[in-house]
Amino acid sequence: MDRDKKISTAVIRRLPKYYRYLKELLRKGIYKTSSKELSQMTGFSASQIRQDLNNFGGFGQQGFGYDVYNLSSEIGKIIGADKNYKIIIVGAGNIGQAIANYTGFYENGYDVVAIFDKNPKLIGLSLRNVTIQDIDEIDTFLSQNYVDLGVICTPKNAAQTTADSMVQNGIKGIWNFAPTDIRVPDDVALENVHLNESLFSLTYYYNKNTTKAD
Amino acid sequence: MDRDKKISTAVIRRLPKYYRYLKELLRKGIYKTSSKELSQMTGFSASQIRQDLNNFGGFGQQGFGYDVYNLSSEIGKIIGADKNYKIIIVGAGNIGQAIANYTGFYENGYDVVAIFDKNPKLIGLSLRNVTIQDIDEIDTFLSQNYVDLGVICTPKNAAQTTADSMVQNGIKGIWNFAPTDIRVPDDVALENVHLNESLFSLTYYYNKNTTKAD
Repeated sequence: MDRDKKISTAVIRRLPKYYRYLKELLRKGIYKTSSKELSQMTGFSASQIRQDLNNFGGFGQQGFGYDVYNLSSEIGKIIGADKNYKIIIVGAGNIGQAIANYTGFYENGYDVVAIFDKNPKLIGLSLRNVTIQDIDEIDTFLSQNYVDLGVICTPKNAAQTTADSMVQNGIKGIWNFAPTDIRVPDDVALENVHLNESLFSLTYYYNKNTTKAD
Repeated sequence: MDRDKKISTAVIRRLPKYYRYLKELLRKGIYKTSSKELSQMTGFSASQIRQDLNNFGGFGQQGFGYDVYNLSSEIGKIIGADKNYKIIIVGAGNIGQAIANYTGFYENGYDVVAIFDKNPKLIGLSLRNVTIQDIDEIDTFLSQNYVDLGVICTPKNAAQTTADSMVQNGIKGIWNFAPTDIRVPDDVALENVHLNESLFSLTYYYNKNTTKAD
């Protein structure tokens, strides 16, 4: 597999979905699948699937289908699902609490090592045994502890300074839930979850009376 | 404006972002903008922006730029931001609670009219003055109350039956947070927020040491 090959964002967005279905097949004890079967599960066309998986080469054999274990394991490596990640959460409001309490996180190798907020009513409380610290402690904490990913759950006016603080302290991946766009250097991975924008996409199709192609 | 024109999903996904920035300009008292200025704000290219906005026709005048008020108001209509929506939430766990408590919701004309769960420890509790009801009451509630949108925050094994129940009772728009794909008829709008997939997209780019183009 050529790991340095340039793969389009659209393909990358589909990989976690393939990964999820392949893991489900494994859980059911199914070890062979086909682009046709994957198509029925994912809703993507069989030719789209073959094209996507060809990006990584050698997973399928014409007429023999895909080896579910190898394929899921390779896709897992590509999307980084084979590693563990140390995470901090900044902002312990509704979304921050939901993320901190999210079980799927822990099951998938994500370890929340610190939570920060500026609200005195929240500081000192614990979420899943992690004590909420004063945001003023973030630089000290990050200078003493290695952290992979930072989750921003602040109001939008605090999002950029939070990101800056994470970046200055060496964090290379940011998951942003604040309803604003933040700027990060080119070597920092950034993923935005803009719930308002997701909701407007829903109401667009709702008002059109149609399911959208996902 | 030709409202029946077929617009690609990619364009629709960018509209809420334009809308957000245009509203910010209005809040700052700025009433004229250009594709160049919108490009600096959104990170999309100026030609992309002109092409996107041309889909709706007549918003910009060569050399005069865009009228911020008209443009935001038209985009707002297209994405349905000019209407109010009655919403139910099924699943009052971490994510369901965060959604129910999310202030941006109320400010934008979304009204949570009912919340359902099957956990006896949650039934009877209130989130922002809405009492959590037994999921067994959902059919009765929906037969007596008009609801626009349903939010699914259940575990994945309950997601499809929840969607079926919403659809059978006339709900035409579903916002799905359960980590699974649900099937709905063609006239029902569906928007998935798959946090695990978003996180895998982040770790892919994190392991590549690069920001992705968003």
